[in-house]
Formats: sequence, C-alpha cells, structure tokens
Amino acid sequence: MASASNQLSDFFGRSVTVINIGLAGFVESVGQQGIPVVDVDWRPPAEGVLKITHTQSGNSIDDANDEAVARIMAGRPMIVGLDLARQVIPGMTDRTILHAGPPISWERMCGPTRGAVMGALVYEGWVETPQGAAELAASDEITFDPCHHHHAVGPMAGVISPSMPVWIIENIEFGNRAYCTLNEGLGKVLRYGAFGEEVYTRLHWMADVLYPSLAAAVERSGPIDLRAMIAQALHMGDECHNRNRAGTSLLLRALGPAMARTCEDGEQLAQVIEFIDGNDHFFLNLSMPAAKAMLEPAEGIKGATILTVMARNGTDFGIRIAGDPERWFTAPAGIVEGLYLPGFNADDANPDIGDSTITETAGFGGFAMAAAPAIANFVGGTVQDAVNATLEMYEICFAEHNHFTIPTLGYRGTPIGIDVRFVAETGILPKLNTGIAHKEPGVGMVGAGVLHAPKQCFSEAFEAVKSW
Amino acid sequence: MASASNQLSDFFGRSVTVINIGLAGFVESVGQQGIPVVDVDWRPPAEGVLKITHTQSGNSIDDANDEAVARIMAGRPMIVGLDLARQVIPGMTDRTILHAGPPISWERMCGPTRGAVMGALVYEGWVETPQGAAELAASDEITFDPCHHHHAVGPMAGVISPSMPVWIIENIEFGNRAYCTLNEGLGKVLRYGAFGEEVYTRLHWMADVLYPSLAAAVERSGPIDLRAMIAQALHMGDECHNRNRAGTSLLLRALGPAMARTCEDGEQLAQVIEFIDGNDHFFLNLSMPAAKAMLEPAEGIKGATILTVMARNGTDFGIRIAGDPERWFTAPAGIVEGLYLPGFNADDANPDIGDSTITETAGFGGFAMAAAPAIANFVGGTVQDAVNATLEMYEICFAEHNHFTIPTLGYRGTPIGIDVRFVAETGILPKLNTGIAHKEPGVGMVGAGVLHAPKQCFSEAFEAVKSW
Repeated sequence: MASASNQLSDFFGRSVTVINIGLAGFVESVGQQGIPVVDVDWRPPAEGVLKITHTQSGNSIDDANDEAVARIMAGRPMIVGLDLARQVIPGMTDRTILHAGPPISWERMCGPTRGAVMGALVYEGWVETPQGAAELAASDEITFDPCHHHHAVGPMAGVISPSMPVWIIENIEFGNRAYCTLNEGLGKVLRYGAFGEEVYTRLHWMADVLYPSLAAAVERSGPIDLRAMIAQALHMGDECHNRNRAGTSLLLRALGPAMARTCEDGEQLAQVIEFIDGNDHFFLNLSMPAAKAMLEPAEGIKGATILTVMARNGTDFGIRIAGDPERWFTAPAGIVEGLYLPGFNADDANPDIGDSTITETAGFGGFAMAAAPAIANFVGGTVQDAVNATLEMYEICFAEHNHFTIPTLGYRGTPIGIDVRFVAETGILPKLNTGIAHKEPGVGMVGAGVLHAPKQCFSEAFEAVKSW
Repeated sequence: MASASNQLSDFFGRSVTVINIGLAGFVESVGQQGIPVVDVDWRPPAEGVLKITHTQSGNSIDDANDEAVARIMAGRPMIVGLDLARQVIPGMTDRTILHAGPPISWERMCGPTRGAVMGALVYEGWVETPQGAAELAASDEITFDPCHHHHAVGPMAGVISPSMPVWIIENIEFGNRAYCTLNEGLGKVLRYGAFGEEVYTRLHWMADVLYPSLAAAVERSGPIDLRAMIAQALHMGDECHNRNRAGTSLLLRALGPAMARTCEDGEQLAQVIEFIDGNDHFFLNLSMPAAKAMLEPAEGIKGATILTVMARNGTDFGIRIAGDPERWFTAPAGIVEGLYLPGFNADDANPDIGDSTITETAGFGGFAMAAAPAIANFVGGTVQDAVNATLEMYEICFAEHNHFTIPTLGYRGTPIGIDVRFVAETGILPKLNTGIAHKEPGVGMVGAGVLHAPKQCFSEAFEAVKSW
C-alpha cells in the first residue's frame, strides 16, 4: 500500500491561517503531500513609509487604480494580422532599430543587445559583417529607440529592424494596437544576442515562408482572441512567459484549418507546422504584445500608481507608472539566479534583459507561476516555489484578475496591477522569471532563472508619486 | 492590497501531518488559499479481513504484483496505424458487434448500449431502420462480445462494428496490440446510445475522410509515442479520461506536419483539423487503448492481485485480476452523481457505462484527477475534490507510476495497480469520473459525474484470491 502520510486534513475546521514570516528554514516543500507551504519574503516596511491614499491635489489613488485595472481587465487583445515592422509600427523609419527596455545608447548597450543589433544590421543588408555592423551602430546613422516607445515589445534583446515581420495585436475594446516579432526558438537566436549564418538563414525563412503563411491564415481565419487563449493556457500549465507549451498548441489548433485552406504547398505547410511545433516558446511573442495591448489603455489615468511597463535592456531595469506614463524610473539590471545550459555558468551571464516582464505587469508570467508548476524545473526551483511566488505577489498588486485564474488556487484570479505604494509599504519586490543571455555579443542563450526587480527604481517612483 | 489572509505557512515546521477521518463537515475547500485539505473517505476494515501476503501455494503476492506493475509501467504504447475493425481486430467476424464492459446478452443490455447497437446495424447497412435493427439484434444472427475479449476498448456503449475504422496501438516493449474506434465528439453520438441520420452521416464522414487522412499521416510520421503524450498531458491539466484538451492538442501537433504532407486537398485537411479541434475528447480514444496495451502484459502473472480490467456495460460493472485474467467478477453498475445538460436530470440517467475505466486501471483518469483541477467543473466537484480523489486512491494502489506524474503533488507518481487486497482492507473503493448517457436508446449524452466502483465485485474477487 502506498504511504498513508499524505492523507492530510485540517482538524481545526475551515479557517486555520498560518503565516510564516520568520526563518525560511521552517518552511520546506511538502508538495509531495499536496500541501503548499508559503514562505512570505517579508521585511518590515522601511522606516517612514507613509500610507498614501490621495494625491496632493486631493484625488483618490484607489479610485484611479480601480479605473486602471478595470481598463486592463476589460481589454480584448486579438491577433488581427501580420505585416513588416516598417509598414505598421508607428514612428519607425527605414533606419530605426528598436530594442527592449528603457532608452539606451549604443555605448551603454550590453553584449547581447549589441549582438542582436549587429545581427539585425547584417540581416537588413546594410552591412556585410558584424564588425561593419558595430561601426555603423556607433555612427549617428541609426536611430535606437525602445520598443515601448512604439507600442511594441520584444523578448530578451528585443531588437526589431524595419524588414522584420511582426504580429499586429489589436485591443478591440479600446482600439489600440501592439506589435511583436515572430519567435525564433531557443539557442543561437538573435534575441539572445547571437548572429551568424544560422541566425540570418532562420530569419530569412521566417520572413519568406513563415510570415506569409501566417498572414494568409490570419486573414482567412479572422481575429483570434488572445485573452481567451491566455486564460486557457493558464489552465493548462503555462504561465505564458517562460512556459508557452499550451499556448503554442492552442494557437496551432486555432490557425490550423485556415493554414490548410490558404497554403497551397503541402510541404511548405508541413515546415511551418514543424517550426511552430518545434518551439514551445512560439506563443511568447503573442502573450507579450497581448499584455502590452491590455496595459496601454491604463496609461495617463491621473493618480494611478500601478505599473504599465516593466522592462530591461540588459544594462538598466525600467518601470513606468499609469499616472505618469512617459517617465522611466530606472536602476541597474539585476543578476539572474538560475540553471545553466551545459558548458555555461554564472560568469557567462548577462544581467536581466527583455520586455517580457510585460507579462508580469499584466498579471500573468511570473505572477501566475502557481499555474505552471513545470516552470519550476526550467528556472531551477520547486513546485512550492512556484505557488509561493504567486501568493506573495498578491501583496503588491492592486487587484485579482477576473479573466485569468489559477486552477490549483481554487480558480483565484491572478495578481494584477503592481502598485508602487504596496511595494514601498511591504518591501516586497516583483518576482520575475526569465531566460539568461550570454554577456558577449554573438553567443546566445545560456540558461534561465529567477530574480527580483531592483528596489531603487520603485523607491524613486514612490517618491515621485508622493509629489503628485 | 489584495487580502493577506492567503499568506499561509506551517508554523509547526516541516512535518505536520493531519488526517481527517471523521465528519466530512470538518473539511471545506480552502483552495482559494492554495491549501489542499484532504478528507479521507475511510471506514474501518470489514471484520475478519485478513492481510494476505502469500497464495495458498506459497507464492509471494507482493512479488507477483511487483512484476505486474513493472510490466505495466515498462509498456510503451505507440500509434502504429489505423485500419477497419474487421481487418485487424482478432476474432472479429463479419457479424460481430463488440460492446463495452463484461459479457451481456441483447435482452439484458441497457438503453444506450441497445441504441448504439441499433445505430451500428443501420450504419453497417444490414437493416434500414432502428426497429429492424432491434429485431436483427434479438435474433441469433449477431455475435455480441466484449471489446475486452478482443484486445479492444470502447468508451460508453463501446460499440465496434466490422466496418468502423480503429486506431492500432502497439505496446512495442511487449509486442501486444490494442484497438479503439475514433472519437465522434460529444452530444448526439453513437457511443452515448444515439442513432439517426446525424449520427450515421458523421460516422460515414469519419470512415470516408477522417480515417484515410489519419491513416496516411500515421504511415508518413511513423509510430507516435502515447506514453510520452499522456505524461505530457498530465502536466497540462488533463487526466486523459474526461479531460483530453491537452492530449488532443499534442496529437494535432504531432500529426500536423504528416497530415500536411499526405493530404493533397487543402479543404479536406482543414475539415479534418476542424473536426479534431472541435472535439477535446478526441484523444480519449487513444488514451484508452494505450491503457489497455500497457495493462495486458500483466495478465496471467500467477498470484498478482491487481486489476487489469475495470469496465461497465451499463447493466453490470466488471473487473478482472492479473492473476486470473479471463475471469470476470461483476456487480450491478452504479448510479452516477453528476451535473446534467440543460433539459435533463437524474431520472434520465443510465447507470455507469463504458470501458473508459481502463484509464483508472492504468494509473491515470480519475486516479490522476489532482493533475486536472478543471475536471472538477465537468463532473460537478471542487478543485479540492480532485486532489482528494487522487490522494485517496494511493491507499488502494500497489505502486506509484514512474512515468505519469502530477506537478501539483510535487511530481509524485500517479497511483497505479488497484490491489483487491487493499480495497478489502481499507474499505476504499475506486473513484471514477464518467460521462452520463440517457437511459433510453437513441438519445445520447445527458451529463457527467463521479461515483465509486461497486463493492460486491471486489469482495468476490478478494474471496477468490484467498483460495489461490
């Protein structure tokens, strides 16, 4: 007979509530028995932190945040098409290169961002070699701009060059659009800072074969509801940031019939399906612009203290707040604790990088880790860590999502709306999970892990809020 | 700030273990806080139940069961092809009709089994009307036989007639094969006892379009590993009995490229994908024969007291034991407690029916409900009920599966190998989840729910074991 020790119950009745804010050693995974144990990563609030309920001008911050999260949750991001970046991304010139995170000059860019820029310049045909690309990038002929300044998002280095195809996501509730490239897969890929023939060949195939196939299929199928797909994927073990296996599966199911009807070459169709099937992260480049499209309508709500952007360029970590949406608060990008691919270690790691934290900002990704216990393997934690990560994030979020829910938490809504006030009051920082890029240009992915957002940018944002 | 009451931990340290074997009222779902509470459906063992460790002839039962579960877990069921039932199912004649569950005559068949038989006879073209079919079925011209007597399994009524296409599943570790029809979808379908034009039209399309498309794709793709697919699906919210959304998605991904390469008609390919995408239960008719193929190599191990078959024909519930694999122990089929489709209620329900309990017998399905919290909605329970169902089943199973694991239980292996000794000793009966068919022929599905296997057949099996 299998052991009986897993037969657990609550002999106090229904309302026992135990909080461990003490030694972490008291808490150990008892997941084998099916019991989440929560260790709150709690510190006493910083001395002198005031509870702020109103702006200096007398507006209720809670009212403003209510409106902000209501707009975010009302958003309905749909895939409405694909096009080339320069054709559809507002403000993108023929010599614009977009990148992840807050603004940064070529001189301050980290290795993987430089690598991705160099690869993109060769891919565009503006130069022949990475060396030539570095020279061109250092000249004043290229305009570098954050994706976030153009309604776009990009994972890792997040580089978007003019001739790259992008998904077009429209939030049909508000009419705003967001953009993201197609996901290349893992390993030696541009977004991890890799360049070289293998990278260019894949990017060209994606532009020449994958993009027209998907564009024709979306035109045939009509808009595809990403909020519904993310909600489903959260019920199928994804958190839609570092695990997108279900999302990728559901996308293939949704597009399959239209792809079959619009692609006349069976071998080409087979290759397109194989490429998507071979890359469980394919859906990431849809969950990210979906998040971006949901968050933008909250920008500009006076007095709202929740984040609408959280992003890293591999050098700086930056956040933006709904009530003052153009302003970046930045701090040095953190070091990721994680697992490394064979042959690599922590010495190879670039600091935290990418726009993919838009998923946490929109109430899923790392904030929904409880929905994705398998992610624990990918980033080097336990199932218990995944549950704890979500439970802790409720402490710094303004609301619980009414569309994104977590089965194992009894269908509780995910934590949504990171409030800079609560971060200041509790001392709890947003927990992120992420891939790790090699710090040198041209190498690519070396691992994946977890970390906290840096405290400094939240402290500065909180100071700014106090002056509103 | 979201409520803090969900911040829970264990202030006794790591080893607190509480078992509720008392009033169920002490236990209530606290899933919202992420804490499974387990209510053990425990009763004192029946007076006079002996612990049996050896057969009368002195063989160790544990050794025999070790061998049995080792063989089951070593099994590697693969999709190796499709064909028409009469071409491949051993012992099937041109006038054989297979059905779910233990043997039964036309006279004793329940409404949905009769309905499915009548529909199959019309579908085969042997008669023109259901009335004619009933007359033919009552004559001695038709041979009725359990699917299980022919290495086959069928969900609900489980009717297989000679010209129906079937999946061929080979357990490549042992060389044995199992068979199952293609899943029709939900609602007014043959396996729920429905007949009529809608049913025949669908069955003909499945034979004329779906079957050749899938057969060509499998031939092109080569064998598809179902053990790996079930293991994955258990990590994506399926339990592979009443929830098969992930399994169906993974199957489409696996077959997609080969379907694209072998289907020359894009519109036909689109319809095939749409049919599969439109039916989240499509994978059930693969998880079932996979289970059957894994279990058969354990049949005939002398002294093994674990089940290799658990099946219902809508009138009788029957089990078979590895150590005496040809003998059925039967009891009246139970009443399902569940949720009903609009317009139906418990008065419409047929008793428990179908071979799909082969999934529980093989260590998934209802026994892996903790992996599939969403199933709780489908069968009318809570997330907590789903976790409890799995935890309780460990008490009557001989082992934990080394390939099928449950993320939310810290990747604990699923309970595998229902031991009739443990059922007798603990008084705990296998818990099943299932669809509900209308009790009259010709209607179809009316709901879904849960129930326990009947005690009587287990008691009789245990008595038989004592005489070995």
